[in-house]
Amino acid sequence: MENSLGKLFTITSFGESHGRCVGVTIDGCPAGLPLTEEDIQKESDKRRPGASIASTTRAEEDKVEILSGIFNGHTTGAPICLLIWNQDADSSKYEKIRFLPRPGHADYTAFTKYGGFNDFRGGGRFSGRITATMVMAGAVAKKLLNLISIEVLSHTIDIGGIRAATTGLDEIRANVEKNPLKCADLTAAAEMARVIEQAKKAGDSIGGIIEGLALNMPVGLGEPIFDTLEGDLSKAIFAIPAVKGIEFGSGFSAAGKRGSENNDPFTITDGKIVSITNNAGGILGGISNGMPIVLRVAVKPTPSIAIKQETVDIKKRQAASLLVEGRHDSCIVPRAVPVVEAMMAVTLCDFALRAGLIPKVIK
Amino acid sequence: MENSLGKLFTITSFGESHGRCVGVTIDGCPAGLPLTEEDIQKESDKRRPGASIASTTRAEEDKVEILSGIFNGHTTGAPICLLIWNQDADSSKYEKIRFLPRPGHADYTAFTKYGGFNDFRGGGRFSGRITATMVMAGAVAKKLLNLISIEVLSHTIDIGGIRAATTGLDEIRANVEKNPLKCADLTAAAEMARVIEQAKKAGDSIGGIIEGLALNMPVGLGEPIFDTLEGDLSKAIFAIPAVKGIEFGSGFSAAGKRGSENNDPFTITDGKIVSITNNAGGILGGISNGMPIVLRVAVKPTPSIAIKQETVDIKKRQAASLLVEGRHDSCIVPRAVPVVEAMMAVTLCDFALRAGLIPKVIK
Amino acid sequence: MENSLGKLFTITSFGESHGRCVGVTIDGCPAGLPLTEEDIQKESDKRRPGASIASTTRAEEDKVEILSGIFNGHTTGAPICLLIWNQDADSSKYEKIRFLPRPGHADYTAFTKYGGFNDFRGGGRFSGRITATMVMAGAVAKKLLNLISIEVLSHTIDIGGIRAATTGLDEIRANVEKNPLKCADLTAAAEMARVIEQAKKAGDSIGGIIEGLALNMPVGLGEPIFDTLEGDLSKAIFAIPAVKGIEFGSGFSAAGKRGSENNDPFTITDGKIVSITNNAGGILGGISNGMPIVLRVAVKPTPSIAIKQETVDIKKRQAASLLVEGRHDSCIVPRAVPVVEAMMAVTLCDFALRAGLIPKVIK
Amino acid sequence: MENSLGKLFTITSFGESHGRCVGVTIDGCPAGLPLTEEDIQKESDKRRPGASIASTTRAEEDKVEILSGIFNGHTTGAPICLLIWNQDADSSKYEKIRFLPRPGHADYTAFTKYGGFNDFRGGGRFSGRITATMVMAGAVAKKLLNLISIEVLSHTIDIGGIRAATTGLDEIRANVEKNPLKCADLTAAAEMARVIEQAKKAGDSIGGIIEGLALNMPVGLGEPIFDTLEGDLSKAIFAIPAVKGIEFGSGFSAAGKRGSENNDPFTITDGKIVSITNNAGGILGGISNGMPIVLRVAVKPTPSIAIKQETVDIKKRQAASLLVEGRHDSCIVPRAVPVVEAMMAVTLCDFALRAGLIPKVIK
Repeated sequence: MENSLGKLFTITSFGESHGRCVGVTIDGCPAGLPLTEEDIQKESDKRRPGASIASTTRAEEDKVEILSGIFNGHTTGAPICLLIWNQDADSSKYEKIRFLPRPGHADYTAFTKYGGFNDFRGGGRFSGRITATMVMAGAVAKKLLNLISIEVLSHTIDIGGIRAATTGLDEIRANVEKNPLKCADLTAAAEMARVIEQAKKAGDSIGGIIEGLALNMPVGLGEPIFDTLEGDLSKAIFAIPAVKGIEFGSGFSAAGKRGSENNDPFTITDGKIVSITNNAGGILGGISNGMPIVLRVAVKPTPSIAIKQETVDIKKRQAASLLVEGRHDSCIVPRAVPVVEAMMAVTLCDFALRAGLIPKVIK
Repeated sequence: MENSLGKLFTITSFGESHGRCVGVTIDGCPAGLPLTEEDIQKESDKRRPGASIASTTRAEEDKVEILSGIFNGHTTGAPICLLIWNQDADSSKYEKIRFLPRPGHADYTAFTKYGGFNDFRGGGRFSGRITATMVMAGAVAKKLLNLISIEVLSHTIDIGGIRAATTGLDEIRANVEKNPLKCADLTAAAEMARVIEQAKKAGDSIGGIIEGLALNMPVGLGEPIFDTLEGDLSKAIFAIPAVKGIEFGSGFSAAGKRGSENNDPFTITDGKIVSITNNAGGILGGISNGMPIVLRVAVKPTPSIAIKQETVDIKKRQAASLLVEGRHDSCIVPRAVPVVEAMMAVTLCDFALRAGLIPKVIK
Repeated sequence: MENSLGKLFTITSFGESHGRCVGVTIDGCPAGLPLTEEDIQKESDKRRPGASIASTTRAEEDKVEILSGIFNGHTTGAPICLLIWNQDADSSKYEKIRFLPRPGHADYTAFTKYGGFNDFRGGGRFSGRITATMVMAGAVAKKLLNLISIEVLSHTIDIGGIRAATTGLDEIRANVEKNPLKCADLTAAAEMARVIEQAKKAGDSIGGIIEGLALNMPVGLGEPIFDTLEGDLSKAIFAIPAVKGIEFGSGFSAAGKRGSENNDPFTITDGKIVSITNNAGGILGGISNGMPIVLRVAVKPTPSIAIKQETVDIKKRQAASLLVEGRHDSCIVPRAVPVVEAMMAVTLCDFALRAGLIPKVIK
Repeated sequence: MENSLGKLFTITSFGESHGRCVGVTIDGCPAGLPLTEEDIQKESDKRRPGASIASTTRAEEDKVEILSGIFNGHTTGAPICLLIWNQDADSSKYEKIRFLPRPGHADYTAFTKYGGFNDFRGGGRFSGRITATMVMAGAVAKKLLNLISIEVLSHTIDIGGIRAATTGLDEIRANVEKNPLKCADLTAAAEMARVIEQAKKAGDSIGGIIEGLALNMPVGLGEPIFDTLEGDLSKAIFAIPAVKGIEFGSGFSAAGKRGSENNDPFTITDGKIVSITNNAGGILGGISNGMPIVLRVAVKPTPSIAIKQETVDIKKRQAASLLVEGRHDSCIVPRAVPVVEAMMAVTLCDFALRAGLIPKVIK
């Protein structure tokens, strides 16, 4: 396993879905940043199922605690350990299906890779709950990015084929936290809710697409040829369970375009070099060009469904069928929205530190 | 800059398009692997423009030399340095446009990030020529993967909206090196050639999609939660210039699917646990599940076009227009095909070493 | 700050002397290792002041808790987080001297590097208490090394110039935990106790030397040219506060020797290639040669003394004098003994994993 | 093998003693640094045997070539590859002793670790010749450190027990390159020459001690708790063959001292906080305190001697004796002096970049 990410802003995640806690240690945060548990809690709460029709009703309190790295309300330069204690969870249904890997889940690969020693309860280390550690780290990263005016946003743009209309930034800022779909287009959001409801009634689940944006980007973030902005953002975002694709700017649609259409001409606006279009998604040669970073993330339908599925008994090595008990998230896309934002923030923060844009001591 | 990639199989790339050479050092290759310059040359030649209608006619001899790490025809455990000397190139056209960044290229971001000290000739460190260093490293990785029977393949599946029909593995193996489009569907290939020819006549360029496959995968490659198979493959592949999107298995189409469609049921075939479908693209929880890895890579139209474009003079900081002289690749997709294969091989080789599947000494 | 160490067995330390806790996360531990809190506690207790005449009497209970990574009594492959909650500590004396850096301590450098935001209470992140995180990690490493029969030992060989006689391994094993000096030569130990007592009476402190041994070493640990066994062991051991020197085998005395004296002739004993002498300290070319690793570590007298010292007021930037209140360890050497052992174990464990000697799943 | 070192200033060494070349790639050097082959050659020449009585007479021309990373006389931000082509060397004597490992050399450990595939000619990757790659990298590091006024010096202080008198910095600067012993005390140097001559006549070799200094240090270099200044300097210096010990400031002698003697009182001189003594060797808590860094390195007598030695035949697995033909360096200490300097420079440069003291673009 590799549970650390980042070169200068390094996060180390630990904990399991049904273990004692989930936590994250952040190493490399400059000293002098004001930071409270409320700062983290606020971001953490965005991941909460809340009123979302799409989510399970498991009441996760998810109270964030700071274990280290803060003194007199400021970061000290020392590693910041953030923790959420798990509530007691009923693991009995997982015991029953221990040797029956759920299709689409990591059960089979984890069992095989770790010789059956993996904590399978609630998906263990492969649970969506682990994204809580990402969001906590993202909260710190966002505060640092805020110092250099970088704003990171994310929102649902597609669920089950229902595509949100293009909206302005103000609508994204205003609407995303207002509706459980985390969609800026409230009309589409209502439609998405219906699609999810349909899937739910069928005991099924549905996928979607999340868009991530980074605004007020400086020119020069990214360390090619290998630590490109696209490459490191992708790596960070693929750590989110259920992500199966990512594209930047015109992305896959660029395949059908001509260079003359896809190239973004430069111009000068208010004395600043900008591009007229942004097919590049804010990145040229793996380096930010000052335009907004625009990326889209494909999220598969959550594999947890209330429908009988074919699987195998990996102990007896014979065919079996499986019906997973209990509540299921019929659509995890909205809950993944703040996680995409968090992982973008963590990555951009690392690059900003590498570019020397954030001081070692904040005054 | 960060020019090293990989944890146990670490490649370090160096060199510039119009500098003295391009080269790569491979650290972590087990001792005892038979390796000759011909082994590398063979892979390197796949990247050569050759008869491709899509490519410039610059005659790059690209003769691979081994500078270190081989003794008596075998790897020694020491770092392997592989080098290609550059031929003399005419850099005069780049001098003329030094302060006129080409839209879609890294000229502007590199100039800004490196304070104008970057070697801009032929794109310098951001040139497609740097992918020669990736292919050389990939050649070694492929030989190592061959020891554990992993086969990596890649082929063009879309150019300018012309989509190749789905073909069998045998056709991919047989046809890719036969046609300059590197497309297994020879009928589509002919059509793709026409589309490229049209773009070329218009002084324009065209994009496409490459599919990468890894066959005979063991279960268990990948080191989540951060070093997932998807994440590290993506990071490696985004190092290839012009790549703007990547997806695994059902990828973006999963967004519109239900869980019951997208989940891959398990079954037992020939005593082996397999999945009936492969929407997961061979990866569950960031770990290989033994099914073929299937990924698709979006390649933007090469930004080099023979059409006048709007840009800015970054020295005078005023609007300007630009017409880049000389030959241009009107479609770089076919030349990127072996590079995708190489970067997949490099990444899988690193994971195979991390999983302990390749011995430290090969006997 | 960089609070992670190790390539495949990676430990990440967090916490402060007077903060809520000290903790460590271990990533890369193979799955299937039986591990209990008692396993860690046992090693942790060796660091405890106990009856040692040399140590402060602060009653540190230091109860180890496992927060993650263990399931059904075994490691799971997931990161193992180990934690000790701090007892309430009186930080008032540190408040008083906040701007008066104690000579020999990290007060001045930490204040300057972290802009005064560092948690200075009890030395904060620079306290000897942080070595508790090293010992916890070492406990896991020692269990893994035990699987391949490597034994790590350490003992006091010098305090204040009192040199222990050379003893056999059995005496080291038997005597070290028996006396508060952690010295195998019980006669010398008594003398060392007197020397410490003298220093204590004078309000002063005293330094010493610790010897570390690794037995039953396989041939081939170490990854030169940069990750040599000497280099990585040194780096790990210099993380222990107060260490100012390290040597391997004949070490500094080799400077005065001739090659014919210092070279260790090879011979065959019981069918095994061994060297007749061990001036190399078990390492040739940065790689273990199968002989015991022998290293010696210089520990400076603890800078905490009850004598008035000259310093500066870093706020007023003027000369000042300082008399630190409270109890002091008059000799920290014995408490550093298990820490040297722990850091040796952590380093060797990393190298054993890199050499492929410990399986990914323990059965 | 691990042939890369450094986090932000990363050097990757390659090549073998009797292979085609030795080389090094430097990644992370800021753009805009003026750099010529002469800059590197000048440092490289210091490693040359020259007129040294202690060294072999093999005429190594060691002409440095820059392969990449420089454009218009300045660094570009891209990786800098530096290379020295090897002259033809006679490897026949190594063929003869292929299975007879030389005591004190890496022959046995390399053979075992790399399954006999290692390039054994001239010691291959374990040859002193590999230090040429360190010195080339050090030349670049020294130019960067020069920008922030850090000066790195090293000199021989002991050979075979002949101890140099303490000299001032001016004498070190003036005398080291003047005499083949690289000793600032010219009287001691003459005596050292005699000791070496005696060893040489006896077909034997002799060891020594090198002192390294870094002057004009800023406060704050070092990233504890694991990337301490002592730890990373040690790791870098132990990469030099034959180094078996290192100490900082009062080092091993601190073991016999009291805290009141060993603590360095602070005072203010010319408005600057300094310490009156420097037993800390310029480092407190793993962080530079602004005083000169002072370290001493123990170098064992070179294991190459012209005296018959006992060894084993590792193929036949039986006792054997060995008399190595040809010339030998009877003392490698003077040739290691510039290498210590280089590795100090490389390490300090990495820390200076980490502390943000050297800009990303040099203007």
